[in-house]
Amino acid sequence: MVLYIMCSLALAFLNPVLVLGGMNVTRPNILLLLMDDMGWGDLGVFGEPSRETPNLDKMASEGMLFPNFYTANPLCSPSRAALLTGRLPIRNGFFTTNSHARNAYTPQEIVGGISDSEILFPELLKKAGYINKIIGKWHLGHRPSYHPLRHGFDEWFGSPNCHFGPYDNKQIPNIPLYRDWNMVGRYYEEFNINHKTGESNLTQIYLQEALEFIYSQAVAQQPFFLYWSIDATHAPVYASRPFLGTSNRGLYGDAVREIDFSIGKILNLLNLTGIAKDTFVFFTSDNGAALISAPMQGGSNGPFLCGKQTTFEGGMRVPGIAWWPGHVAPGQVSYQLGSIMDLFTTSLSLAGLEIPRDRAIDGIDLSPVILESKETERPIFYYRGNELMAVRLGQHKAHYWTWSNSWEELSQGINFCPGQNITGVTTHMQVEHSINPLLFHLGRDPGEKYSISVLSTEYEDAVNRISYVVQQHRDSMVPGEPQLNVCDLAVMNWSPHGCEKLGKCLTPPQSNPWKCVWPH
Amino acid sequence: MVLYIMCSLALAFLNPVLVLGGMNVTRPNILLLLMDDMGWGDLGVFGEPSRETPNLDKMASEGMLFPNFYTANPLCSPSRAALLTGRLPIRNGFFTTNSHARNAYTPQEIVGGISDSEILFPELLKKAGYINKIIGKWHLGHRPSYHPLRHGFDEWFGSPNCHFGPYDNKQIPNIPLYRDWNMVGRYYEEFNINHKTGESNLTQIYLQEALEFIYSQAVAQQPFFLYWSIDATHAPVYASRPFLGTSNRGLYGDAVREIDFSIGKILNLLNLTGIAKDTFVFFTSDNGAALISAPMQGGSNGPFLCGKQTTFEGGMRVPGIAWWPGHVAPGQVSYQLGSIMDLFTTSLSLAGLEIPRDRAIDGIDLSPVILESKETERPIFYYRGNELMAVRLGQHKAHYWTWSNSWEELSQGINFCPGQNITGVTTHMQVEHSINPLLFHLGRDPGEKYSISVLSTEYEDAVNRISYVVQQHRDSMVPGEPQLNVCDLAVMNWSPHGCEKLGKCLTPPQSNPWKCVWPH
Repeated sequence: MVLYIMCSLALAFLNPVLVLGGMNVTRPNILLLLMDDMGWGDLGVFGEPSRETPNLDKMASEGMLFPNFYTANPLCSPSRAALLTGRLPIRNGFFTTNSHARNAYTPQEIVGGISDSEILFPELLKKAGYINKIIGKWHLGHRPSYHPLRHGFDEWFGSPNCHFGPYDNKQIPNIPLYRDWNMVGRYYEEFNINHKTGESNLTQIYLQEALEFIYSQAVAQQPFFLYWSIDATHAPVYASRPFLGTSNRGLYGDAVREIDFSIGKILNLLNLTGIAKDTFVFFTSDNGAALISAPMQGGSNGPFLCGKQTTFEGGMRVPGIAWWPGHVAPGQVSYQLGSIMDLFTTSLSLAGLEIPRDRAIDGIDLSPVILESKETERPIFYYRGNELMAVRLGQHKAHYWTWSNSWEELSQGINFCPGQNITGVTTHMQVEHSINPLLFHLGRDPGEKYSISVLSTEYEDAVNRISYVVQQHRDSMVPGEPQLNVCDLAVMNWSPHGCEKLGKCLTPPQSNPWKCVWPH
Repeated sequence: MVLYIMCSLALAFLNPVLVLGGMNVTRPNILLLLMDDMGWGDLGVFGEPSRETPNLDKMASEGMLFPNFYTANPLCSPSRAALLTGRLPIRNGFFTTNSHARNAYTPQEIVGGISDSEILFPELLKKAGYINKIIGKWHLGHRPSYHPLRHGFDEWFGSPNCHFGPYDNKQIPNIPLYRDWNMVGRYYEEFNINHKTGESNLTQIYLQEALEFIYSQAVAQQPFFLYWSIDATHAPVYASRPFLGTSNRGLYGDAVREIDFSIGKILNLLNLTGIAKDTFVFFTSDNGAALISAPMQGGSNGPFLCGKQTTFEGGMRVPGIAWWPGHVAPGQVSYQLGSIMDLFTTSLSLAGLEIPRDRAIDGIDLSPVILESKETERPIFYYRGNELMAVRLGQHKAHYWTWSNSWEELSQGINFCPGQNITGVTTHMQVEHSINPLLFHLGRDPGEKYSISVLSTEYEDAVNRISYVVQQHRDSMVPGEPQLNVCDLAVMNWSPHGCEKLGKCLTPPQSNPWKCVWPH
């Protein structure tokens, strides 16, 4: 099937009358390219020294680069929930209250997931006539009620959880992949990742899925939302054979090169089919690079402090590129503080839809920024689980709590800030600074190394401004029902829908729920 | 005078018949833009998050970017001597043997300087009909025999030493500025730098000097070499009033913005006068950013380890951009390992001149890289004073010695690696690793965090290759006469040539030479 599509597309590309544009859509297609654990510093355009992302660099030069773009959480599931709901994880339920300030996500023993009470923007796009597809990782819960096709998507090819494994299908089942409602196989069975060589053709499969979907919608002149949520840069990192060993950066770089290649193909197809001018494309990542997996399995956060799991810049500042030929002028850099949650609001705005008014929405509409370079002051909130750890406003960032991870974890070699140690900042205890927040100027000091003296007028002015914003934020905060508190082996992917047809149903153990333990 | 030139140039630029090209020179003009303590990570194109170098970024997009470009020493004077001689400081004498592995330079109490036995490439260019000018910092010795006009330059406007001060002209004289043979004033007297505000118009003066020189040579159709060796990013950092407070990065960023603006003006003049296609331009820096002066007075080394004074990447990897419209194709990235010493060889090659054969030259000819993208494998040697600390070959770097600085200095707050601490790597003792060099893969691990296991075949292969190169290098090494061993208060800038006319001669103390102390 994949081969067939490759051939048909290849033939189509030779046909000069392929161009299908002229739909005159007022509602642009929306294409989100979401990376997994890719760091800000992994792109050539953001200074990766080996500069192996020519297609992404070209995308930036043809569009608008966001050096101040943030995810909503330093971990995958909450970020993805925030992206699709436009709301902080503390509101949409993607957090835990089992312990203070803990990152939590959706491993396959998690009971919770995305609540029916949350509105995902594809739900709204769908009502406006969009066809919505997710390719790749979902990560908002794997139990049937959390299925993406129940939350606004029309099509899905990918997996509900991380591609961890291989498991024994006895104590732990291998993670399934779905096509729409039905599983089509499991990782390490039908969809292999060779841990020794790092080989897997999954990115190629996800690429072909994207090309096929885009091509079909272009032919049908059908507005679409495609959420290309691939995971090759999340450990265990993988690349297909033609890319293995091609990077100067090792296996992680091979994965980046394959993704860069794939994005080149996708943008090229938008151009070839004539729908580039009708398609808003945004590239970003779910959190900072996982330095704990570096150098073979983790990326780079450039000049920023620490990585994934932390609320330092390396954990939450992510690459951001907007591309929309004919609408977004080429070669721009925006200094706007942007958030992954803005993609909710911006997508609705571009589709001409109303933003829900019955709930707090944290994302702002970036279309004035993208289309008219009109920037807005807004804060960035850095949460870790149920705790507001830090706030950025303008160039200043105030830390109310600092924590890297525990001394116990560190002594086991778990280090989210390898090679970096800033006394009183990268703390291995949870340290509260609420009375005198630790203040940094991210323009002069993007690495959060030089805290500003509490005795300075700069400190007083900045902390006053930030405190006001924090007070407003706290006063109006209504946390959601925490979804990431309860675990149960019985809810794992034993018998996903469709397993019968494949003869791949497994027997779950008895239900025995427990309070999930989130160590950091 | 400066104002007059500004006006005459401004008028000239309005005249569409200004274009003076069509010289059909076979010998291109050579313009070296040498920064002082500017780090690899200070350019937008190398990932500085505030992205405030639009002109340099444009220069890169119109030319060739070198992400693997190195200086020859982590300190100013030896780097500059290496640039002009094409030879490692250990050969050209810009080192000390007073203590092991110490950085040394040319403060005004230094007795030594550039030896008459060294050939500086402007000397050769001059014989081939070039007019050579240095604008800014010389730093190869300030005593009369070391004067730039005795070493190949026809014109000079600038200073022999760093713009340190203000001094009292009793214990220590203020540093002079020269026009050609005569001093024209002193720092903090005729040429002020306000330490409180950071204001100084020196970059504007250096810019006007450059514009005037280029314009004159263009009018005269005279091949030229211009060495624009400015120092606004060296502490004490400065910027002129229109730039103060304009950067998101503080005073250091203001200085960078003014330099970026100035380079934009210079390249624009090359275009306006029609000589851009006849002018090879190279932008680089003398060493990595001085992290000890950060954040207000120091720059960024991006993802690299430590800064100026060290032989980690942050100390010696520097920005490199080649620009030559019509000859260097736009938008290229070269992975060539380049060295500041290559500018010696490349300049001679572009001018059609022979490379001296009577001595070892460490620089290679980059013209095949720049003009035909033909890359060459070559090692990079990282010296600290008289010691070969490390060697890069391909992606591998082997450290034979590690040292950041002493515990004593560290305890006084002198830190060349702030916020960075890698056990066994950023050592505060001089640690020898000659038997089993510390090996890093700079592609996977540009931050030198993860040393490669001595038990791996990768280690064995890489160290074998590097050891062979090191052996060859050591076998053929003939160190020069060390120039940086002797200091004497009597040699300071008491009575520079021309002081009589200005009534600014000072009385030197009795000569009392001592062995200079180089603490790191």
